[in-house]
Amino acid sequence: MENKTFNVAVMGAGNIGSAVISRLMNLDKGIVGLNVKRVLVKDKSKKREISDDILTDNFDDILNDDSIDLVIEVLGGIDPGKDYIKALLQNGKAVITANKDIIADSGSDLINTAKENNACLYFEAAVAAGIPVLKPIIESLRGEELTKVSGIINGTSNYMLTSMEEGSTYDDALSTAQELGYAEPDPTNDVEGLDAKYKAVILSLLCFGTSPTSDDLFTDGISGITKEDFEWAARLGKTIKLVAQIDNKNGFNARVHPVLIDTKHPLAAIRGALNAVVVEGDNINQLVFSGPGAGAEPTASAIIGDVLSACHQLSSDQTNWYPLREFKGEMKNFEDVQSSMFIRLSVNDEPGVLANISGTFGENNVSIESVIQEGRGDKAELVLVTHEAPEKDIKNSIDQISALDSVTTVTSTLRVYV
Amino acid sequence: MENKTFNVAVMGAGNIGSAVISRLMNLDKGIVGLNVKRVLVKDKSKKREISDDILTDNFDDILNDDSIDLVIEVLGGIDPGKDYIKALLQNGKAVITANKDIIADSGSDLINTAKENNACLYFEAAVAAGIPVLKPIIESLRGEELTKVSGIINGTSNYMLTSMEEGSTYDDALSTAQELGYAEPDPTNDVEGLDAKYKAVILSLLCFGTSPTSDDLFTDGISGITKEDFEWAARLGKTIKLVAQIDNKNGFNARVHPVLIDTKHPLAAIRGALNAVVVEGDNINQLVFSGPGAGAEPTASAIIGDVLSACHQLSSDQTNWYPLREFKGEMKNFEDVQSSMFIRLSVNDEPGVLANISGTFGENNVSIESVIQEGRGDKAELVLVTHEAPEKDIKNSIDQISALDSVTTVTSTLRVYV
Repeated sequence: MENKTFNVAVMGAGNIGSAVISRLMNLDKGIVGLNVKRVLVKDKSKKREISDDILTDNFDDILNDDSIDLVIEVLGGIDPGKDYIKALLQNGKAVITANKDIIADSGSDLINTAKENNACLYFEAAVAAGIPVLKPIIESLRGEELTKVSGIINGTSNYMLTSMEEGSTYDDALSTAQELGYAEPDPTNDVEGLDAKYKAVILSLLCFGTSPTSDDLFTDGISGITKEDFEWAARLGKTIKLVAQIDNKNGFNARVHPVLIDTKHPLAAIRGALNAVVVEGDNINQLVFSGPGAGAEPTASAIIGDVLSACHQLSSDQTNWYPLREFKGEMKNFEDVQSSMFIRLSVNDEPGVLANISGTFGENNVSIESVIQEGRGDKAELVLVTHEAPEKDIKNSIDQISALDSVTTVTSTLRVYV
Repeated sequence: MENKTFNVAVMGAGNIGSAVISRLMNLDKGIVGLNVKRVLVKDKSKKREISDDILTDNFDDILNDDSIDLVIEVLGGIDPGKDYIKALLQNGKAVITANKDIIADSGSDLINTAKENNACLYFEAAVAAGIPVLKPIIESLRGEELTKVSGIINGTSNYMLTSMEEGSTYDDALSTAQELGYAEPDPTNDVEGLDAKYKAVILSLLCFGTSPTSDDLFTDGISGITKEDFEWAARLGKTIKLVAQIDNKNGFNARVHPVLIDTKHPLAAIRGALNAVVVEGDNINQLVFSGPGAGAEPTASAIIGDVLSACHQLSSDQTNWYPLREFKGEMKNFEDVQSSMFIRLSVNDEPGVLANISGTFGENNVSIESVIQEGRGDKAELVLVTHEAPEKDIKNSIDQISALDSVTTVTSTLRVYV
């Protein structure tokens, strides 16, 4: 590794691309010799701090240059990056990408392409940016049967939930996140859980050997969460987090949704734009990896880590991939997943209401763990937490309860992290 | 990796050795083919669940067997393991060890031996047992300039401190830890910080390229901590943890001692026998790795992870080691380290006492952050927290204060984690 200089191409020169190029150029030569040979951009004429000689707008200049050892893809979006990565791997080049969309869409196919061509493919930055968690999962923990992997893997929504925990409204939390550049002008991907969902698909592939389809992966976001939900959470010794859960304990299911989580759980301590991934298995109990989940510098750090791994691996002429895990488990639909549900209702303050409501749960075989009822004039606020029961039974109960004459509104429903 | 069967020898068949052998024998052949060819024991006649054919009491049977690809060392102690590991590396065999004593003593030498012989050396289990943290530090984070690494890396003392936080006395916490097998009959290594010190030396080598000597690494244990210290910690919004700190921000210093730490710090949440390592750098901010820090199964998990890495690496005929970090920094003696100190004194409740004490600090250029004085009959309890100042100035102040007529006892001194 010490004696060779590796030629690198970077595809994309946006925020992350620029951070990566600068880090590559300043990397201590005592670690590895690197030469940035090509940078692929859309528009060569745009002003940049990159020498004109190495700029190109033609992918073939990279694909067909036999002297290029490894290529970093930071274009964003699925096309044309996905086809580029595949072609590069087929040409035996090492590829490093930060692109969660591509890996969620085609991770398994691209890993197989890498293996067939004795090529290297790395994507540490695609999940939880600056936290080195994928390599430990792929390599160090490959011998473990994992039972559950969960995580806070969207920094924007966690930043907003942390603000709300401290008293902000949802709208204030969102505008601050937008001002700070954490949230996009259209925040849908972050606040509706879609970004976390792509990352959950990648974790699922690496930890359990299966990539759930979009339909199989129940996803709910944080846009319905209110300050009042946080006040109730605090009364119960809990807070609210958007958590991805991939569970293979009693049947396999992956899902992303907000949860009420005990303040003593390690994920409850993950504040602001931080990310964390919790990996569980019989031998290792519970491992927690936490750190910065977004931003150009942490993302560049993950990419540089991958570059070093690739350079070390390249002289061996073999893929970096250990055999992928084979899926062992039984797919469980979300409606069969066991959940404990927190339910907040506005009801008429009159005799028999609680009996009606608890009767409805009983008919659906859902038992109730705790109830708090508080008068609000001629209305009352009723807060119930159910024991674990299948999602479909809980859903039926809530549908029937919301149709009761004495129930004005189902104000909110939140799953409890168990 | 998939098509070859690797021959493995295990040196040592105690608790950990037995767990490792059982895991090796039951490992999914789809990951890698492994054959346990030899197990080195002291006494072959002892009854074990290991076939007689593979037992040996002669190290040369392993060293000179060319068919053995990799050797796992779990003998314990420095001798003869250290010489064995060196000889095996010189014969080109991959070596995996869980032995913190050997790596703290000779890590740098053994790594160089591995590199010179294109051999592999792994020791993930030597620090924080089941947490995959060394590989991320060695590989994923090799491109980062780290500023500080700290951690709770002794499970026994953390178990005891957690019990004390919950109200136990030191003696009760120790006897429970001994009953549960967390603490040895002679608990010195754990409670006096020696175990954590060895691990700090290893972290220092990997993170900063230098192995501090025993004299350079200030070490203090938990045997002086009392219930009353915890009560005071709670009043200040803090708890007490035994933390190893290796700091290269303003000069380099490594040290292990108990600290008063804010309950919101990630290390404060590490409870019971868990371990955690916090890695800091400008680009990555703060990464936290936590999980089980001891026990046969987590240790075996780390060793199996190393076995998989070794098998993957072996077909490349090159060492697993990236260039070690070069030490960049200026060694700072512990007496020059800046500390903030919590000091609890029993004093005579008479005029002028506080003036005398604060005057003494002032003469030593130590400024005081907070003071609480509480009457206890004709005595008073005085609790001071200093701002950060050099250790030697704080020590001088305390020496002079303890000699004052109005000061009965310096009840306790604890550094505050800053």
